[in-house]
Amino acid sequence: MGKRNLYLKNTPVDEALAVYTEALSRILEPQMEEIPVTESLNRVTWEAVYAKYCSPLYNAAAMDGIAVEAERTKGASEREPMVLYPENDFTVVDTGDPIRTPMDAVIMAEDLIENGDGSVSITAAAAPWQHVRPIGEDIVAGEMLLPSRHSIRPIDIGVLLSGGITRIKVYRQPAVAIFPTGTEIIEPGTEPKDGDIIESNSRMFEAMVREHGGVPCRFAPTADDYELLKSRVSEAVEKFDMVIVNAGSSAGTEDFTVHVLRELGEVLIHGVAVKPGKPVILAIVRGKPVIGLPGYPVSAYINFENFVIPVLSMLNGQTQGNSRKVEAVVSKRLVSSLKYREYVRVKVGRVDNKLVASPLARGAGAAMSLVRADGFCVIPQNSEGVEAGEPVEVELYRSMDEIDHTVVAIGSHDLILDVMADLMPSCFPNNYLSSTHVGSMGGLMALRRGEAHIAPTHLLDEETGSYNIPVLKKLFSEPMALIKGVDRIQGILVAKGNPLGIRGIEDLPGVRYVNRQRGAGTRVLLDYKLKQAGIAPEDIRGYEREAATHMAVAAAIAGGSADAGMGIESAARAMDLDFVEVGPEEYDFAVPVRFLELPHVRCFLEVLKSREFAERVQQLGGYSLRQTGEIIYL
Amino acid sequence: MGKRNLYLKNTPVDEALAVYTEALSRILEPQMEEIPVTESLNRVTWEAVYAKYCSPLYNAAAMDGIAVEAERTKGASEREPMVLYPENDFTVVDTGDPIRTPMDAVIMAEDLIENGDGSVSITAAAAPWQHVRPIGEDIVAGEMLLPSRHSIRPIDIGVLLSGGITRIKVYRQPAVAIFPTGTEIIEPGTEPKDGDIIESNSRMFEAMVREHGGVPCRFAPTADDYELLKSRVSEAVEKFDMVIVNAGSSAGTEDFTVHVLRELGEVLIHGVAVKPGKPVILAIVRGKPVIGLPGYPVSAYINFENFVIPVLSMLNGQTQGNSRKVEAVVSKRLVSSLKYREYVRVKVGRVDNKLVASPLARGAGAAMSLVRADGFCVIPQNSEGVEAGEPVEVELYRSMDEIDHTVVAIGSHDLILDVMADLMPSCFPNNYLSSTHVGSMGGLMALRRGEAHIAPTHLLDEETGSYNIPVLKKLFSEPMALIKGVDRIQGILVAKGNPLGIRGIEDLPGVRYVNRQRGAGTRVLLDYKLKQAGIAPEDIRGYEREAATHMAVAAAIAGGSADAGMGIESAARAMDLDFVEVGPEEYDFAVPVRFLELPHVRCFLEVLKSREFAERVQQLGGYSLRQTGEIIYL
Repeated sequence: MGKRNLYLKNTPVDEALAVYTEALSRILEPQMEEIPVTESLNRVTWEAVYAKYCSPLYNAAAMDGIAVEAERTKGASEREPMVLYPENDFTVVDTGDPIRTPMDAVIMAEDLIENGDGSVSITAAAAPWQHVRPIGEDIVAGEMLLPSRHSIRPIDIGVLLSGGITRIKVYRQPAVAIFPTGTEIIEPGTEPKDGDIIESNSRMFEAMVREHGGVPCRFAPTADDYELLKSRVSEAVEKFDMVIVNAGSSAGTEDFTVHVLRELGEVLIHGVAVKPGKPVILAIVRGKPVIGLPGYPVSAYINFENFVIPVLSMLNGQTQGNSRKVEAVVSKRLVSSLKYREYVRVKVGRVDNKLVASPLARGAGAAMSLVRADGFCVIPQNSEGVEAGEPVEVELYRSMDEIDHTVVAIGSHDLILDVMADLMPSCFPNNYLSSTHVGSMGGLMALRRGEAHIAPTHLLDEETGSYNIPVLKKLFSEPMALIKGVDRIQGILVAKGNPLGIRGIEDLPGVRYVNRQRGAGTRVLLDYKLKQAGIAPEDIRGYEREAATHMAVAAAIAGGSADAGMGIESAARAMDLDFVEVGPEEYDFAVPVRFLELPHVRCFLEVLKSREFAERVQQLGGYSLRQTGEIIYL
Repeated sequence: MGKRNLYLKNTPVDEALAVYTEALSRILEPQMEEIPVTESLNRVTWEAVYAKYCSPLYNAAAMDGIAVEAERTKGASEREPMVLYPENDFTVVDTGDPIRTPMDAVIMAEDLIENGDGSVSITAAAAPWQHVRPIGEDIVAGEMLLPSRHSIRPIDIGVLLSGGITRIKVYRQPAVAIFPTGTEIIEPGTEPKDGDIIESNSRMFEAMVREHGGVPCRFAPTADDYELLKSRVSEAVEKFDMVIVNAGSSAGTEDFTVHVLRELGEVLIHGVAVKPGKPVILAIVRGKPVIGLPGYPVSAYINFENFVIPVLSMLNGQTQGNSRKVEAVVSKRLVSSLKYREYVRVKVGRVDNKLVASPLARGAGAAMSLVRADGFCVIPQNSEGVEAGEPVEVELYRSMDEIDHTVVAIGSHDLILDVMADLMPSCFPNNYLSSTHVGSMGGLMALRRGEAHIAPTHLLDEETGSYNIPVLKKLFSEPMALIKGVDRIQGILVAKGNPLGIRGIEDLPGVRYVNRQRGAGTRVLLDYKLKQAGIAPEDIRGYEREAATHMAVAAAIAGGSADAGMGIESAARAMDLDFVEVGPEEYDFAVPVRFLELPHVRCFLEVLKSREFAERVQQLGGYSLRQTGEIIYL
């Protein structure tokens, strides 16, 4: 079966990092460079910076008015105003003008009576140093302006320049070589053939290196060729401060990154107890850190954060720990292995003043789960998981402010939810829609548990043949409303040209079917139609094969692994499939009445009724907006 | 008295912003540009982006192993293993390899028995689609990858490329012209003369524009010349999307920015009810926003945030609202005017699980207060202020994580506190020292109110002649400890060469003295020495003139507004003054015993005893480290 690396270990994350940084701390030497202060934004101070000048540089007028000798104004009063003459008794000053000896006080313009001949009268004595900003009031020469290892902000630039500092010593930004590897990978922009993988991780790394104070240098993909990779890495460690190899870090037949690094230097860690992301290589080659990251995007991302960023910060002086952790209640049971520390991406919403974390797809390949995530929670290595409703600590990507203005939708999937999510912040800045797709019934259950504001649903009541209202009446005791959504056509998705000539439900037995998950409205509809047609589920080949969304069903058919599946017309259009109409259905939003007054839920309603929404839905095709935005109180 | 702008108004901040953005919304047109995805980090999407390809692009192996037809493995069991032959029955696959029809399942390498002749045996049937990542599992073609107005992150770059997108439409970054003005301002790096002001605001603006998604263009300072400014602004509105003029925005004799803007276009607002920062001009010149900002750095900063950033985000699509607000208890009474909304910079610390906000210098010129601030709180326009101990909402600049690892020191000022603050995070990453200077007695009071962890103090007990311990015993009922700090020399700071020939306390009557604030240990020491010498405070000219730190005293003397003041030797050295020794004193740290076990307080102790600290203090001069770091339990 070829050569496999049998020695992939399972070192705990913290131990792996400690072993590696400990070894690196003995050899890594951060470098210093001196740069102009005006170019120092976001750079990190190499040493404490002390002011060269005071600010203000001299005793300065704090107000517009006249500068006087306080001593000589004694005796002035409302009853006996004192007349002062220019040059002899005062000088006119604007805010910021120097106050020179013997002047030692400022009288504000508002308190002067102009006599018309250039002289002024005052009706109160001036106190010494009144309305004078003393030299050094803001900055005293010799004072520490910034400590070492401080990340420079705009205000710091202002203060440094005011304090007479024009050049500053900062950590040099480490140069990081990034090597994408693999014979199957192609550059973005190339038309992919079967078996090709578009190389995107290296571009993500490039951006991450920039964000964390490094200078990335991304090389063109290296084919899976032992000698080639060896010579590239060997050259790179001479020129760069750090090298990232992606991927080939696992133990497959073509995963020889670890062998190359063992030959060139020392591999300290191969394999870390983290999920996703086990196949990590932490090596040192000729005094330089070389890190092998796994190929799955989520694994790559998590391990970049776990291992690359700490090493970058050893070199660039940046402190880490800008994390924002909050406690949230997890919306469904999370089972995790005792063998791994697991990073679970979550959507976070505030419902009824409670933070709720809804887990997203957990696979290592689910890059979109990172895009959609509001944060992630960590299930420790020694834990078997968390029960629904239990608290977890979530590290947030988004601000609490955004989360507090987000409508949380959990339920059935439709493409119009994407359109709504796109339109919300455009129409009402700082108002958002977050949606998680668990099927109609799953959404109603989440609503009942207080984990969502609204639940998109399309559940047919078999007895009455009507949509949504019967099931809501059955499930909820609190006052509920139904926001009418769209009428949409359900049908059977089939390959372009309908090669098997499927005409309806009656033709499903015998073809390879892909179903939706239990509780999905589309599955309920299938079951109803099968029953009507007198077909048993066992007669449907693939009845047990579940896809989570309309688009996933469409993808399965487009990919040739299934012949048919129930879904909506817009999904068929998006994937260029044929569509066999089965019938219309009502896709609505269940909402507890008490949420209808929430400002962001009101925004949701406004957007639903907007012209922009109608136009966008028109473009998708397959919808009718007959009652859209109407509220039915149950 | 020259021409003053009598019409400076006092418009509330929100009203001013609403008036301005409403007017701008009718004329501003954000611009679009298309750029490579690989260069799109931190740019903002112009429209929703939809995937062109699925990811994975095909049904792919999710594990290393063999691809088989599931149907043909039926019947394999532990008791009756099935033998499979290459080519006929299986193909070897690594993770990510395509699974081609008729293959529809993967058996993991770990589950295979190799027979040595190329064939393998399996002991269980494969389920259809097991260990296969279906086409589109992560991304489905036609799916929305990113909504509009989304700020692009590294993971987004990865997903866009995976989804087949290589170029993306984003908001063009607005070009912002920045005009520093004023005859008195000089460029940084020039040796300043009396009356010169180093121009630093424009460089701060430059960095702020960059941080908020604009492209700054900073011009060389423009002298106070009506026609010159007019022609510059007039040219700039043709070439740039926005213009900032700084300063001349007030109503002084040389403040003609508003006149220039009235002549060129329309001034919508002049004067805003905000403190610091009243003199703001919001104008529109030939369809472009032109904003006049005040000259004081804090006023400039606050109004940049209030007015420039919202206008930038109208142009660049960025959403604001990344603020982190927390509730904290304010440590001292904040009196505020009913006429203004006031922005108070605060240090924030967590003591006894309570967040405490300690106000910093409130002047418009106090740029260092912004550097030192952990955040700010807003006192609304209709409020007279907040009492000590009352809750305020603080908008944080620092992360809660940093704040939770910060030792809060409130009390007497010494330069060694800066050294400690510098060394803490270097020696113990992510551990910080924050110090606020309110004098020894003020610090002990803060400690008693539970607002600090430690209080730097040097209070002489007049009866016993000993330091710190007697006063701690008097003030505290809970178990206290004293961490010994440094012995330092107190003395009289005088101008270089001691021109008045001051030899000691006895020579103070008659000279211009600058004192420290009530409750400062140095003032207690002066009072003690005056009493010993039989001198009444009334005999000291300037006894009532108060400076808040040793460095402020030194600055007053260096600036020529005072002849003498008590202080420490390192302050004299820092400002190049002469120093007349009065005697040694003990500068220590009071700490409640229960805080000694806090991890960051332990770090503080370690740093205090470190070699690095000793070396740095040596360089400052005037200290002895006889007992440094010893703990005396009281």
